[in-house]
Amino acid sequence: MKAELAPVRVPGFRFAGVSAGLKKAAGAKDLGLIVADHPCQAASVNSANKVKAAPVYVTIERLRAGRLQALVANSGCANSFTGKAGLRLAKDSCALVARELGIEATLVAPSSTGVIGHLFDFEKFSAGVKDAVAALSADAMEDFARAIMTTDTRPKIASVRTRLGGKTVTVAGIAKGSGMIAPHMATMLAYVVTDASATAAQLRTALKSALPSSFNAITVDGDMSTNDSVVLMANGVAGNGAMKRRDLDAFNDAVASVCSALATELVRDGEGATKLVTVRVAGARSAADAERCARQIANSPLVKTAFFGCDPNVGRILMAAGSSGAAVDSDKLVLYIGGVKVAARGALLVDALAAAASKMREREFDVRLDLRLGRASATILTCDLSYDYVKINAEYTT
Amino acid sequence: MKAELAPVRVPGFRFAGVSAGLKKAAGAKDLGLIVADHPCQAASVNSANKVKAAPVYVTIERLRAGRLQALVANSGCANSFTGKAGLRLAKDSCALVARELGIEATLVAPSSTGVIGHLFDFEKFSAGVKDAVAALSADAMEDFARAIMTTDTRPKIASVRTRLGGKTVTVAGIAKGSGMIAPHMATMLAYVVTDASATAAQLRTALKSALPSSFNAITVDGDMSTNDSVVLMANGVAGNGAMKRRDLDAFNDAVASVCSALATELVRDGEGATKLVTVRVAGARSAADAERCARQIANSPLVKTAFFGCDPNVGRILMAAGSSGAAVDSDKLVLYIGGVKVAARGALLVDALAAAASKMREREFDVRLDLRLGRASATILTCDLSYDYVKINAEYTT
Repeated sequence: MKAELAPVRVPGFRFAGVSAGLKKAAGAKDLGLIVADHPCQAASVNSANKVKAAPVYVTIERLRAGRLQALVANSGCANSFTGKAGLRLAKDSCALVARELGIEATLVAPSSTGVIGHLFDFEKFSAGVKDAVAALSADAMEDFARAIMTTDTRPKIASVRTRLGGKTVTVAGIAKGSGMIAPHMATMLAYVVTDASATAAQLRTALKSALPSSFNAITVDGDMSTNDSVVLMANGVAGNGAMKRRDLDAFNDAVASVCSALATELVRDGEGATKLVTVRVAGARSAADAERCARQIANSPLVKTAFFGCDPNVGRILMAAGSSGAAVDSDKLVLYIGGVKVAARGALLVDALAAAASKMREREFDVRLDLRLGRASATILTCDLSYDYVKINAEYTT
Repeated sequence: MKAELAPVRVPGFRFAGVSAGLKKAAGAKDLGLIVADHPCQAASVNSANKVKAAPVYVTIERLRAGRLQALVANSGCANSFTGKAGLRLAKDSCALVARELGIEATLVAPSSTGVIGHLFDFEKFSAGVKDAVAALSADAMEDFARAIMTTDTRPKIASVRTRLGGKTVTVAGIAKGSGMIAPHMATMLAYVVTDASATAAQLRTALKSALPSSFNAITVDGDMSTNDSVVLMANGVAGNGAMKRRDLDAFNDAVASVCSALATELVRDGEGATKLVTVRVAGARSAADAERCARQIANSPLVKTAFFGCDPNVGRILMAAGSSGAAVDSDKLVLYIGGVKVAARGALLVDALAAAASKMREREFDVRLDLRLGRASATILTCDLSYDYVKINAEYTT
């Protein structure tokens, strides 16, 4: 199932994105709302980082009951490493949103993204919430997507339509994230909403099965954020009824497809990225070996700078594979860059390097390493490491 | 014991460094020899990478008997991922050196460093070996140090003198390495020679005890090379006799001191580095936790770009600590940058940030994280991630 990247309407959901003055840039959208007409079934997966942000703790607590009606998210401040004051701020924010919407506070989940270690200004936030509530619209998905951006250069939206129980159902997702991206059972901020009818348990299963091949299969810089959350909300407005086996498969596919499209967008817009590279390791002795090996290649600064330089540097890719802890036999492996075989039988194929370099000049290409030791495989999406990555991160001040 | 960084004489050892035309730059030294007047006791530690270079395999084999008389090293070509032809080349190189010196081939160990995936020209190498043998001198330690440089901007030498069994003994080391540096039971090329009398077993112990706090405690880019070797040779010329407890302690100290000084020089000259940063994690629940946490901070691209930008970005340091897998409690930890306390009791100390930023503008500073959960600690030396790291590695072509 291929996801569309344009904003869509999802029956029963409204969105808003406004400027509350939390970001330094005047007029930049920094406060977003997603509101369902009625309480939804919901599930979330959150950062595995041991230093978690206050809104992540609150989201985990709120989602325990599997019900949610509204999401409030701000950029410009992560409300992370802010102790008890941060927790109070996150809860107060939800209470305020609930009051403005006339719903229970426990049905609101918060997210924050931006600089770590600071609280945001609650007065500015409050005024922003009032503006956002006034602006709520079924057509404002892109405004919401813009309100949660930090170093992202563009909003990230993906959606699919599918048939469940004879009804057309929409699954749409919005995500942000450009740096500090290497989720492990964690992600950036991502919200997926659907008008399907699904139980919280079904939503948890759908998320859990979508993550390994989407948000958990990408890396920009190997750094795991403290603020990651993916939330999936279903309002049942489509009227598709209780889902059984076949519908569940279709629903899980739809969620996985939206998550994958968003994850790809995150890497494509990685900080300073000029290339989107798919690293696929096959023929590994175990699934753990395959993933370890793919991740080590995808995170190696030497491999990533070679991507930036369009340099088919086989040695660095093999160095990373060999140091990953996975079983590797340099006499057996076969390596392809952009589909061009560049190493086999323990030797570099020197004559193939020019063709590989030319594939690397494209904006997207893949690196495929067949270890030829077993049957396990893994795929990780990554980007290159450019001057702009250094520029963005040396100048992004506390 | 503090090591000196200038070249010294080590009785019974001669050195050479010549240009054999293996590097692209005309006239650059690229072939080095270390020759002892008599067979030495010797020990080595080599790359843990599963993709090891041919000379590393030969070095491991040669050192099994604990005896060595000569080391031959070239830059400009790593002779790694070169299969059987590479192994033959490494052995032929040793045989040639042995013939020119009139010693047994099994007493010669080879090293190579440079681009992976290629063989070097054996004719050029042979002519170089003849020049090097003719140039051997007790005063040519720096020539050797230059001959093994790749992206290094300067030669790296360290030495100490100590008293053993009533005799003055010299321990001197030479190393190279600037990128692909994150040794784990492995290092870059480093050679330590001494005129002490020591058995191969004693040398192995001395190396093993020196590594955790020297070559295994540094990182430039988290990437482990395929060609790492440290070799320690003792010729016994000092006449200090068999070493017992007290002498062994002094000898181990001397070796550790030389290894630490060389390791520090490697990081100080890290690719594109403008800062030398000591990351110390204390109060960890276990030694493994302490090391994992220090390594995660020291390898994080976001932390390293913040070092480059002189940005006291507490959030990124805590993000790295929290994602390391080590036990971390954000309410308990205390963080210092350049001796300035910047976080405690679950909160950022905002007023201290300007002072911390000013410490970060120095060429060397430390980051100290006290987790306050236990008594284990670990120290890792790292450098910043600058534009020049990207430049050096995007343009270093296969």
